[in-house]
Amino acid sequence: MLKVAITGATGRMGSGIIKKVIEQDNMDLVAAIEVPNTPFQSKDIGEVIGIGKIGVAIVGAEKLEEILKLSDTDVLIDFTIADAAYGAIEIASKVGVNLIVGTTGFSDEQNKNIKNFIKEGNVKAVISSNMSIGVNVFFKILKDLTPILNDFDIEIIEAHHNQKKDAPSGTAMTAFEIIAKELDRVPADVARYSRQGIVGKRTKEEIGLHAIRGGDIVGDHTVLYIGDGERIEISHKAHSREVFIAGVIRALKYIENAEPGKISDMADVLGIN
Amino acid sequence: MLKVAITGATGRMGSGIIKKVIEQDNMDLVAAIEVPNTPFQSKDIGEVIGIGKIGVAIVGAEKLEEILKLSDTDVLIDFTIADAAYGAIEIASKVGVNLIVGTTGFSDEQNKNIKNFIKEGNVKAVISSNMSIGVNVFFKILKDLTPILNDFDIEIIEAHHNQKKDAPSGTAMTAFEIIAKELDRVPADVARYSRQGIVGKRTKEEIGLHAIRGGDIVGDHTVLYIGDGERIEISHKAHSREVFIAGVIRALKYIENAEPGKISDMADVLGIN
Amino acid sequence: MLKVAITGATGRMGSGIIKKVIEQDNMDLVAAIEVPNTPFQSKDIGEVIGIGKIGVAIVGAEKLEEILKLSDTDVLIDFTIADAAYGAIEIASKVGVNLIVGTTGFSDEQNKNIKNFIKEGNVKAVISSNMSIGVNVFFKILKDLTPILNDFDIEIIEAHHNQKKDAPSGTAMTAFEIIAKELDRVPADVARYSRQGIVGKRTKEEIGLHAIRGGDIVGDHTVLYIGDGERIEISHKAHSREVFIAGVIRALKYIENAEPGKISDMADVLGIN
Amino acid sequence: MLKVAITGATGRMGSGIIKKVIEQDNMDLVAAIEVPNTPFQSKDIGEVIGIGKIGVAIVGAEKLEEILKLSDTDVLIDFTIADAAYGAIEIASKVGVNLIVGTTGFSDEQNKNIKNFIKEGNVKAVISSNMSIGVNVFFKILKDLTPILNDFDIEIIEAHHNQKKDAPSGTAMTAFEIIAKELDRVPADVARYSRQGIVGKRTKEEIGLHAIRGGDIVGDHTVLYIGDGERIEISHKAHSREVFIAGVIRALKYIENAEPGKISDMADVLGIN
Repeated sequence: MLKVAITGATGRMGSGIIKKVIEQDNMDLVAAIEVPNTPFQSKDIGEVIGIGKIGVAIVGAEKLEEILKLSDTDVLIDFTIADAAYGAIEIASKVGVNLIVGTTGFSDEQNKNIKNFIKEGNVKAVISSNMSIGVNVFFKILKDLTPILNDFDIEIIEAHHNQKKDAPSGTAMTAFEIIAKELDRVPADVARYSRQGIVGKRTKEEIGLHAIRGGDIVGDHTVLYIGDGERIEISHKAHSREVFIAGVIRALKYIENAEPGKISDMADVLGIN
Repeated sequence: MLKVAITGATGRMGSGIIKKVIEQDNMDLVAAIEVPNTPFQSKDIGEVIGIGKIGVAIVGAEKLEEILKLSDTDVLIDFTIADAAYGAIEIASKVGVNLIVGTTGFSDEQNKNIKNFIKEGNVKAVISSNMSIGVNVFFKILKDLTPILNDFDIEIIEAHHNQKKDAPSGTAMTAFEIIAKELDRVPADVARYSRQGIVGKRTKEEIGLHAIRGGDIVGDHTVLYIGDGERIEISHKAHSREVFIAGVIRALKYIENAEPGKISDMADVLGIN
Repeated sequence: MLKVAITGATGRMGSGIIKKVIEQDNMDLVAAIEVPNTPFQSKDIGEVIGIGKIGVAIVGAEKLEEILKLSDTDVLIDFTIADAAYGAIEIASKVGVNLIVGTTGFSDEQNKNIKNFIKEGNVKAVISSNMSIGVNVFFKILKDLTPILNDFDIEIIEAHHNQKKDAPSGTAMTAFEIIAKELDRVPADVARYSRQGIVGKRTKEEIGLHAIRGGDIVGDHTVLYIGDGERIEISHKAHSREVFIAGVIRALKYIENAEPGKISDMADVLGIN
Repeated sequence: MLKVAITGATGRMGSGIIKKVIEQDNMDLVAAIEVPNTPFQSKDIGEVIGIGKIGVAIVGAEKLEEILKLSDTDVLIDFTIADAAYGAIEIASKVGVNLIVGTTGFSDEQNKNIKNFIKEGNVKAVISSNMSIGVNVFFKILKDLTPILNDFDIEIIEAHHNQKKDAPSGTAMTAFEIIAKELDRVPADVARYSRQGIVGKRTKEEIGLHAIRGGDIVGDHTVLYIGDGERIEISHKAHSREVFIAGVIRALKYIENAEPGKISDMADVLGIN
């Protein structure tokens, strides 16, 4: 049995992960951590997140080291905020607890130190800013496919909700950069964000980037490879934040085989590096 | 039996239409007209277009009036060029032959005169710059749907081959204008051709217009109506020029019921006006 | 200001509707009703559903009549279960409160009585088993489009999560029945659920029905109208249960103009009857 | 300059390939072969296929050996019928001309002999029953992706024209077999061609196979990998027979680097073996 602890246990990600973890045959939730001096202290985490008593009491983060030792935790999962996560990683590394971290926003210095904590603690760690299995696989397909279809016309379309302020999405830009790199093209030279008026024939080099905005779309990405008489379309469609949870479960299954003292990413987890 | 004559008989559209007409139970090809003094004069049209002898000899356009009378033609189909078509319409109207015309590029004066020819001849006529059944139906759906979904976010995506010089396509712009009109929005104010950088939240009014270019795509158009938790997508996809031929067959079936002395369009043919 | 009351206030639909209602400029939440003798009695509904105090205390359904009068409610919204909804409709009709009901599973007798309650109370009522704007519009498009494209090949594809036990979905079957009816075809004769092996050419009459199952897909439906050289595709994609909430808001905006003493449906709300 | 000869030069594939070959900077058409004693003998191939004189006279296949030697052909392209192709391969191998063959329907014995001809002649040869770049790449993606997404639900959808007699398509069945093999599942046990009625929850093992039929669709194939909260969709869409021609051009560019005396396939050409 893999003994799992989680910080931010009552939050949306935390509670979602807990629900999935306790469904797994070979995993046990052994600790549920919340902010220091949480008002939920000592309450049963299952009751608080609406799934009924599961026999694990919530603990404030001020007792993180203590509870990790007491519960003999194998893996600590952290999807919180950078400063909280940073502290949790330091403690877990020190006490020899492996880590799965989806928290983002670390400073460069924090990132450097995190690397050291993990090295010194010789713990296994999966840290990724995008735990989605699908997005990581999507990138991998693009990387493999682009050099083969290097004479096809390539266009990228993404769709997100109407509250999103930046465009194209970070995922679309990463996809674009992967493609440009595989084709030895300079991204700034070949990005085509708009076509309006008498724009002339499409050049072979340009790569279209189209950002759809509307409603509450979670996030769709499609790359079109268009040749003579045929097209290949690669799409990733995220329906819900569930995507990250499935990625965490994958990482949990992988962690045993991770290299100690080193940070692994989702490509390692998925075996696509 | 509907007796059908066709100009430009050996061309791509002409020969395509002939092949479909002779497949119909209740239609007969009775005359195949080509350019004046055509080298194909007197050859069997079937043999020239590669479907075997069908017993109809090609005739040069200089004998159009003669052949229409001789063959007792019910309907003349014209998909040629403006000047040739203009002459054909004048003659057919005079001798009382109904008309199906898909030719484009008439001058304003030609259009005015054509109207008169048809009125004076009291013939039935279907004239349309886009004979595709699907495109006309597509426009109809947008017209009906937009006022109902007036609080949804609307985005238009089109895709065409890499040789196309203008963007967005004429069909996409017509779709956009139909939608803007139904929403009482000024097209120039709400068209959104690009999203790049920190563009802020989507406004309720804007309508996205995205032009994909690649390979030899004949023409795809999709309108997205995106609401909270749901989307409606309306797509028209043209695979080949066959689309216009199917529209001609529809028009042939309709022509009997058309109003004499008046120009009908594909919306009349399809009963969607 | 439209004064809105809601039953099942702490449930998923109830709380979702409340969040949207209080965002509207011209609507007020005036009463939040829960099961009789609810443990939440007198608690602030905003606090219970996690949006902070809003000044409306939860009331048990045993005091429904009293609270509707006291709060001078204009419209009662009910998304609960048949027996509870039945009682609520009876009371609201008696005290002259309009109704929006999305509850399903009424018996024939209940349905008959509900009709009478509304007639006798002369209240305005929108009752629909599917409050989704999109699905109702989707059906409307199919109804309008099918007779126009009656010589196109028609195929229906739906996709749902892997826990769904029936196939094709109810919505797909309704779409199929609408299409078959418009084409004067007998549904049982033309439904084609599978193609495997040497099945021969497609008949003109058959209508394909394909049920995709996988993951946690909420519900996608697409109807393909496939002609020579072109296709029209009509898709409805539900991302989340939000779809019903948007429908309720539409119904709230409509209710004033509804016909008193009669049950209206979503087609009335959307103006597509 | 790569000197190219082609059999079946006036046919649809032959003439299409010629048009593309003469557009290439580093290729020359040096011989155009037709059936033995062709009536086109000595006519200019360009004129016969409607692109104007190009200075290459059509030759009957009875003089194949002679013309290959005379023109110093580097590569012979053959998209004809099995018996004709068989003879052409024998001759070309003997005189040391490399081969690109898309002809299908060879008998087992012919296949065995062809292997020997190529070995003995020590010529370079690309022989494939499906020259489409896209379809070969599509299979490659499925092969790579399936083991990574082995806990996703997988469904296959294909669409073809209404005259197709078998279902699902050969390409869909190959895709299915590749997927089943990667998952160590027995194809016959996991194929799911239909879902109708109360079929119960989807099993993890089953793989859906859905065949859409309609209009004149050339051939679309989509594989859905559906997980919790996300989907990956891989689509190949063939618009026209042009797909094979693009594959031939790829093979022409590759042939120089092919291994002599051995039959290469499109996976070799595309570097995806």
